[in-house]
Amino acid sequence: MKSPTIFVTFFLFLFFLTSSAYPGMKRQPYPCKNLVFYFHDVIYNGKNAANATSAIVGAPQWGNLTILADKFHFGNIAVFDDPITLDNNFHSTPVGRAQGMYFYDTKNTFTAWLGFSFVLNSEQHKGTINFIGADPIMVKSRDISVVGGTGDFFMHRGIATIMTDSYEGDVYFRLRVDIKFYECW
Amino acid sequence: MKSPTIFVTFFLFLFFLTSSAYPGMKRQPYPCKNLVFYFHDVIYNGKNAANATSAIVGAPQWGNLTILADKFHFGNIAVFDDPITLDNNFHSTPVGRAQGMYFYDTKNTFTAWLGFSFVLNSEQHKGTINFIGADPIMVKSRDISVVGGTGDFFMHRGIATIMTDSYEGDVYFRLRVDIKFYECW
Amino acid sequence: MKSPTIFVTFFLFLFFLTSSAYPGMKRQPYPCKNLVFYFHDVIYNGKNAANATSAIVGAPQWGNLTILADKFHFGNIAVFDDPITLDNNFHSTPVGRAQGMYFYDTKNTFTAWLGFSFVLNSEQHKGTINFIGADPIMVKSRDISVVGGTGDFFMHRGIATIMTDSYEGDVYFRLRVDIKFYECW
Repeated sequence: MKSPTIFVTFFLFLFFLTSSAYPGMKRQPYPCKNLVFYFHDVIYNGKNAANATSAIVGAPQWGNLTILADKFHFGNIAVFDDPITLDNNFHSTPVGRAQGMYFYDTKNTFTAWLGFSFVLNSEQHKGTINFIGADPIMVKSRDISVVGGTGDFFMHRGIATIMTDSYEGDVYFRLRVDIKFYECW
Repeated sequence: MKSPTIFVTFFLFLFFLTSSAYPGMKRQPYPCKNLVFYFHDVIYNGKNAANATSAIVGAPQWGNLTILADKFHFGNIAVFDDPITLDNNFHSTPVGRAQGMYFYDTKNTFTAWLGFSFVLNSEQHKGTINFIGADPIMVKSRDISVVGGTGDFFMHRGIATIMTDSYEGDVYFRLRVDIKFYECW
Repeated sequence: MKSPTIFVTFFLFLFFLTSSAYPGMKRQPYPCKNLVFYFHDVIYNGKNAANATSAIVGAPQWGNLTILADKFHFGNIAVFDDPITLDNNFHSTPVGRAQGMYFYDTKNTFTAWLGFSFVLNSEQHKGTINFIGADPIMVKSRDISVVGGTGDFFMHRGIATIMTDSYEGDVYFRLRVDIKFYECW
């Protein structure tokens, strides 16, 4: 009798460790995949058409389409197609493009809202990663949601931790994006 | 022999009750967390700069940036930073901000599309909740998706049921948001 | 002893087959639901107000709101309310509306970013499906994320494969959307 009892006990232990005994509650504190990228944004200001990777396409009534608006740029929408690199060098070979939009959405500090995709196409990674979330820019490290993916990132979900790695006036910024996938498929 | 057989049978029962025996099919009709909030939107109309919490930042060719456009506001995009309260009183202490955008997207009735985050920062809740979805405004109760979260809402998913709690001309509205999380982590 | 041992072995096999023994890793290569739709977009060009289902509502500094901009329409945002049909005929009875936005986001080729919902209301389907993702328009078949749903599509997630089924100048396009749900609830 001993051997099956031990077996079953071990089994039960395993079972409660891993199955969804409490529907809707998951645990899982470890990422199943972790990737770090940088992306680089050069916003169009009327003079840098050749280098710009983004442009203002929406503004409040008190703004315009070449200069970020007063009141912490509240209401400015920018569309971007930014190079993604593996290190913090703007001139490194891109491994993909960050494509989407951000808009500034507070009148008394700098915050933005992000909706964008990583379109990766390199030896290591082929596929897309889709992000949305609030970006309180002045906070050193902030989290947004990874809501889906395709290709190598089929159905993935997770959290992306964003840090402003460089900021040069209103023309250039570089973000470090630490992507932690908690659902990998 | 009896005891292990019963054990195993009970075990099997538990197993089929809780594991994903049919890949991709989940059950789980009960929310693992349920929260109700209100948020308040005061749209900029050219005269209320001090009080406005949102502004028109995009309009169709027949519109402008201070008056919501003809044809049920079709094409108007608004960016917002709205206070979130626990009750329906605009003057209650906010527990966070609703930040994002909505845009009107039908020419023969009022509907909108929403992309926004709850940025909560109170004793009870610290973290963000990310939403997208269609909002058929004239319907009493409508559902959008909770597609992710961070902090206290790490990786959460669910459904948010929205009701228009108050509507004053084209200047103020208040939404009641009943958030039901079905994935909690 | 034999019978329980076989039982347990079979059980273990089942267990590893179906449970999340490796937290965060899922398998599941088969859709739990598969639906194909078409939707039809007629963009407003200043002359087609009666037929248009979408309109330009954002443009870069070098653009305007009736003609798609130079540089592959970079920065143009369009809001849409497009009929969804079961076949590729614009005049078929719609089963719902595709509502949301797309914006062009590359300066040297045609790509877009999509954020929209299917609002379905037919005999077969009642509910909404929410999508976001990058759309490299010139690629024959491209994948975006299904990040949530409501009603019949409560909490669903999956992948939508998009193909341009027709394209007539800058006025009309039709997309075929093959929705594969991998999480169904």
